[in-house]
Amino acid sequence: MNKDGILYVVGIGPGDICNMTEEARNALDDADIIIGYKTYISLIKDIVNEKKLIKSPMKGEVERCKKALELSGDGERVAIVSSGDAGVYGMAGIVYEIAQKYNINTEIKIIPGVTAASAAAAVLGAPLMHDFAVISLSDLLTDWELIKKRIELAAKGNLVICLYNPKSKKRVEHINIAREIVMKYRSDKTPVGIVRNAKRDDQQVFVTNLNEMLEYPIDMFTVVIIGNSNTKIIDNKIVTPRGYNL
Amino acid sequence: MNKDGILYVVGIGPGDICNMTEEARNALDDADIIIGYKTYISLIKDIVNEKKLIKSPMKGEVERCKKALELSGDGERVAIVSSGDAGVYGMAGIVYEIAQKYNINTEIKIIPGVTAASAAAAVLGAPLMHDFAVISLSDLLTDWELIKKRIELAAKGNLVICLYNPKSKKRVEHINIAREIVMKYRSDKTPVGIVRNAKRDDQQVFVTNLNEMLEYPIDMFTVVIIGNSNTKIIDNKIVTPRGYNL
Repeated sequence: MNKDGILYVVGIGPGDICNMTEEARNALDDADIIIGYKTYISLIKDIVNEKKLIKSPMKGEVERCKKALELSGDGERVAIVSSGDAGVYGMAGIVYEIAQKYNINTEIKIIPGVTAASAAAAVLGAPLMHDFAVISLSDLLTDWELIKKRIELAAKGNLVICLYNPKSKKRVEHINIAREIVMKYRSDKTPVGIVRNAKRDDQQVFVTNLNEMLEYPIDMFTVVIIGNSNTKIIDNKIVTPRGYNL
Repeated sequence: MNKDGILYVVGIGPGDICNMTEEARNALDDADIIIGYKTYISLIKDIVNEKKLIKSPMKGEVERCKKALELSGDGERVAIVSSGDAGVYGMAGIVYEIAQKYNINTEIKIIPGVTAASAAAAVLGAPLMHDFAVISLSDLLTDWELIKKRIELAAKGNLVICLYNPKSKKRVEHINIAREIVMKYRSDKTPVGIVRNAKRDDQQVFVTNLNEMLEYPIDMFTVVIIGNSNTKIIDNKIVTPRGYNL
């Protein structure tokens, strides 16, 4: 192992840089090379002026991680950035898998960030006060039958449900089917929160319910949070009671 | 509504203050009064020198939130702090519920933080690369039968499972039963990560499996993450594959 090389896998949090932790910022400061999808690089560009920046196209995750590992294996100090938390559906896993596959020996450090579920919850109020499931509706890498099964089991268990990647241009029906599955177990008045571009300048927030949720804009930049059977709306905020006797 | 009063509900992240976001720090800077459980106040004491600090005992959550709301309703700028993310099993929900019950009219702003699941995942490697459930084993406010049902459904759905509050001095058997439930659906070699005091000076991290997990220290400061059927151990890190063809 080259003693100086390091690969930081950094979750920069949702939205703009004020949602980044100090630890994440210190990792970016320490790195000489920063690699990421171009949108994320542009979010942090003001604080990484002196660095070598490598922008990578969408869907280039594997190549991006391999490049980052090779550079750090050669002794460079590298950071690879993700929005939200790199540890939740992020780059962290592929980094370890690629390091193993190509036998790249370098120090890897995962820096956690605020994940999209936490960001969406904060702008909606307090939907995640009780047990919850985080499920991605993307079937690019996961069998759709398994995704549907998970939604059904989470609905049956009365878990609050956070849906990541609820819809894309090519994948428009999955959110409708997810809603139908949950409707079998919960009232159509169950509160639903829809947050697009959480904590960014163009953030959109909608507080609605299972019955009406499809009337609102949902896309790949959106997180959808479906309440449990106790979740209520207080002053246009979504609140899942923890169960305190107030 | 008093125009100047505000109540920030701030997740300070796990561990020391470098895990706090800039937005959280700005909220603390803006507040004149900071309220929290004494351990959390001591974590941030170096950056809040000039403030009025109100330390509150454990289990004083409801009184703490009511006090914070009353002060902000009177026009004060107040922050109430939680470790991790105030939006995940935190103070955010009670604040809205108490504001409604006592008809306290003030601006409430939830500032998200890095939740314990993200922090534990980062030090373990990359266990949360796929769908997961977050379940608290505390039955103080939740029926134990419902908790068991949720564990069973999450296990059946092959979700990664994050257990919060896995054990306390009075509640020692729940983690054993949770493990037995998961064992019905997963191999006893399934990777399990145990993280105590994530991101603090006295952090302890154990990478083990379902079979051996009870041999490690587990208490109320611990998060336990149980992998799904694909989760593996790479170089003593826990990695759940996302499914990329590498």
